[in-house]
Amino acid sequence: MNSRMRKLFAYMDNNDLDAMLITSPKHVYYLTGFATEPHERFLGLLLPRGAEALLLVPALDFEAAQAASTVTNIHTHSDTDNAYEILSKLVPAGVRKLGVEKDDLTVHRFEAISTAVGAQAYADIGLPLREMRAIKTPDEVARMKHAVRIVEDVLRAGVSKVKPGVTEIELVAELEYQMKKLGAQGPSFDTMVLTGVKSALPHGHPDNSVVREGELLLFDLGVYADGYASDITRTFAVGEISDETKRIYGAVLEGNLKAIEAIRPGVTFGSLDRAARESIESAGYGPYFNHRLGHGLGMDIHEYPSIHGRNEDLLLAGMVFTVEPGIYVPGVGGVRIEDDVLVTPDGVEVLTSYPKRLTVIGS
Amino acid sequence: MNSRMRKLFAYMDNNDLDAMLITSPKHVYYLTGFATEPHERFLGLLLPRGAEALLLVPALDFEAAQAASTVTNIHTHSDTDNAYEILSKLVPAGVRKLGVEKDDLTVHRFEAISTAVGAQAYADIGLPLREMRAIKTPDEVARMKHAVRIVEDVLRAGVSKVKPGVTEIELVAELEYQMKKLGAQGPSFDTMVLTGVKSALPHGHPDNSVVREGELLLFDLGVYADGYASDITRTFAVGEISDETKRIYGAVLEGNLKAIEAIRPGVTFGSLDRAARESIESAGYGPYFNHRLGHGLGMDIHEYPSIHGRNEDLLLAGMVFTVEPGIYVPGVGGVRIEDDVLVTPDGVEVLTSYPKRLTVIGS
Repeated sequence: MNSRMRKLFAYMDNNDLDAMLITSPKHVYYLTGFATEPHERFLGLLLPRGAEALLLVPALDFEAAQAASTVTNIHTHSDTDNAYEILSKLVPAGVRKLGVEKDDLTVHRFEAISTAVGAQAYADIGLPLREMRAIKTPDEVARMKHAVRIVEDVLRAGVSKVKPGVTEIELVAELEYQMKKLGAQGPSFDTMVLTGVKSALPHGHPDNSVVREGELLLFDLGVYADGYASDITRTFAVGEISDETKRIYGAVLEGNLKAIEAIRPGVTFGSLDRAARESIESAGYGPYFNHRLGHGLGMDIHEYPSIHGRNEDLLLAGMVFTVEPGIYVPGVGGVRIEDDVLVTPDGVEVLTSYPKRLTVIGS
Repeated sequence: MNSRMRKLFAYMDNNDLDAMLITSPKHVYYLTGFATEPHERFLGLLLPRGAEALLLVPALDFEAAQAASTVTNIHTHSDTDNAYEILSKLVPAGVRKLGVEKDDLTVHRFEAISTAVGAQAYADIGLPLREMRAIKTPDEVARMKHAVRIVEDVLRAGVSKVKPGVTEIELVAELEYQMKKLGAQGPSFDTMVLTGVKSALPHGHPDNSVVREGELLLFDLGVYADGYASDITRTFAVGEISDETKRIYGAVLEGNLKAIEAIRPGVTFGSLDRAARESIESAGYGPYFNHRLGHGLGMDIHEYPSIHGRNEDLLLAGMVFTVEPGIYVPGVGGVRIEDDVLVTPDGVEVLTSYPKRLTVIGS
C-alpha cells in the first residue's frame, strides 16, 4: 500500500469510518496512478477499513486501469449494468459510516450511492485529501519542475515573436502552439497576453489589440504536464518605456523579492502577503495592488492554500504556491511578476527561473 | 415573466413544489439572461410559487446582474457574509417541497441549502430544464447559426493553410487563432486535426504528425459564441487518394445524406441512426461505423438527446443536433462528415453549409 493510502486508512481509524469511497477522477489518479475521464460513467475507489482496496471502473477502462493502477483488485461495469447495484455488492456488509467527497459528488450521484450502500451516516473526506495534496512529494515536485520548464520554453518562444504590430491573439496562438509542440497536455488556464494600458485590466481578454513601441506587454500563462500545473507571469517593455512605468516595475519586483525572502516553514501565509504589500505601499502604489499574493498550485491551477493577508495558517515544507504581486494603474498600465515556489525545510526554492529584471523586447 | 419562467411555474404547480432554486450558472443565464462564472461563490435564482422570482448573487456581480437580468429583484452577499443565512431569509416560510438541480449541486452545497431552507423534501428539476432546452427558440437558433458561420469561416481559413509537410498541431494553432480572431468565445471542445491513418483512431490526438500527399485529413472543430456551441467535421483528400478511400468517403456521405433525409417531427431518433447505418452496412462498412449518429447541441456541446439506435424518443420541431456518421478502417484511414441540423415543422434545416463532396486540398 502506498503512503497516501496509508494516511487515508489512518484517517478512517481516527474518525471511526467503516469505509471511504473516492469518486473524483483526480483523486483516483492521485491514490492509484490510474488517470481517466469517465464523463457520466461511474468511477469509484473503495477503501474498506481493514480490507483490501478495490476499484470499480467502466468496462472500457479495464485494461488501462490494469496497466496503471497500484490497486490491483479491479471490478468493472458495462453500459448496460447498473453500476450502483454492482457497488452495493462490493461494499462490505454492515458499513455504518462511509466517507465520501462531498465537494465533488452531485446530489444525484450521492442519492444513488446511498441507496446502494445504505449506510447510516456519510462523512466528508475533503479535508484529509486537501491536506495531503498541499504537501508535494519529490515525485510531484519533479513533475511540477517539468511543467515549469515547458512553460518557460513556451514563454521564450512567444517573446521571440514580439514586434510592434503583432496582435495579442497572434501571440496567444503562438504560445498555445508551442505548448502542444513541447509536449504539454494543454494550457492550465486561459493564456493571457495584454498590451499597453490593457495590462492594467484585471479581467482583460486578449483580442486584436496590437503591440506598440513604448508600452508594457504582460504574459500570464501555464501548462499542465503529467497531471501537474505551472503558472508564470512576466511583464516586458516594448522599446523604451516611461519613467513612471519603470518605477511601477521596480516596485512590483521589490514586492515579489520581499515576499520570496520571507518564505520558510513556520511563518504564516498572511506574513508573505504583508511583506509584498508593505513594500509596494512604501513605494506609493498600495491601492493599486488589489488582489491576493498567490494561490496553491498542483493538480489544480488554484488549490489550497490561498495566500492572502488574513490567512494565518503556517507554511510547511513541501508546499508549492505562486507569488504574484501586481500594480495596476488605470490608463497607465499594469505589471505583475509571478513565480512558482516550493517551501523547503530551511527556506524556499524558486521553481521558475525566467529572468525578472526589466527586459526590453520587440526590437 | 418570460415564457421559460412560465413553464417552470406550471411545472411547480403540476408537481406540487412550493419553490424552485436554480443554482447552475448556465440555467441562471438561460432563465434570466444574466451570465456569470461565480466559481466557489453562491449564485441562486429562487422561484417561489405564487410570488416574485429573485436572484441572490455575489456582491461584485450586482451591477452586471442589474444590467442583464430580466429578474429585477436582486439580493447580494459579500465574501464576509454567510450566503446561506441570507438565502434562509429570502425563502418564504413554510416551504415543504423545494425543487433543486440534483445533477449540478454538490452534496456539500446541498447540505448548506437544506440546513438554511429546512424543507421536508427536495425534488430534482433537471427534467423540465432539459426538455425545455431541447426545443430551441428563434433567438437560440439565430445564435447557433452565428456559431456555425464562425466555425465554417475558421475551417475555410484552416484548410487554406494545408500543404504537405504542415503538422497537425500547426493547423490546430491556426484554427484556434482564427476562432479568437473571428470573435468566438473559444473552442467548444478540443480541436481535432488528424492526418492519414490517424484519422481512423477514435481517440487520436493532434501532434507533430505531418500532412502527406495521398492521405486523408480529418478536421473536427466547434466554437462557443454568445453562449451556444457549433460542431462540424469535414474530411479532405490531400492530393490524389486511393480508390478504397474514395469508396469509404462515398459511403459516409451517403449515410449522412440518408439520415438527414429521414429527419422530420414525429419520427424516432433511432430511425435516423438506422437510416445511416443501413446505408453504410449496404456499402460493406457496417462494423467500421462504431459510434452513435450524433448528439444534441445547444448551450452544451453534448446535451439531450443522444442519437443512437435504441433511442425511441420522437423528434420535435425546434430540436438541434449533430448528424455525424463515420467509417474508421484501421491502417487505412477514417472519414467522418458531421452537420448540425434543426428540426423544422415540416422537415429539416441543415445549419452547416460547408461543401460535403470529396474535395482535394493542399496543392
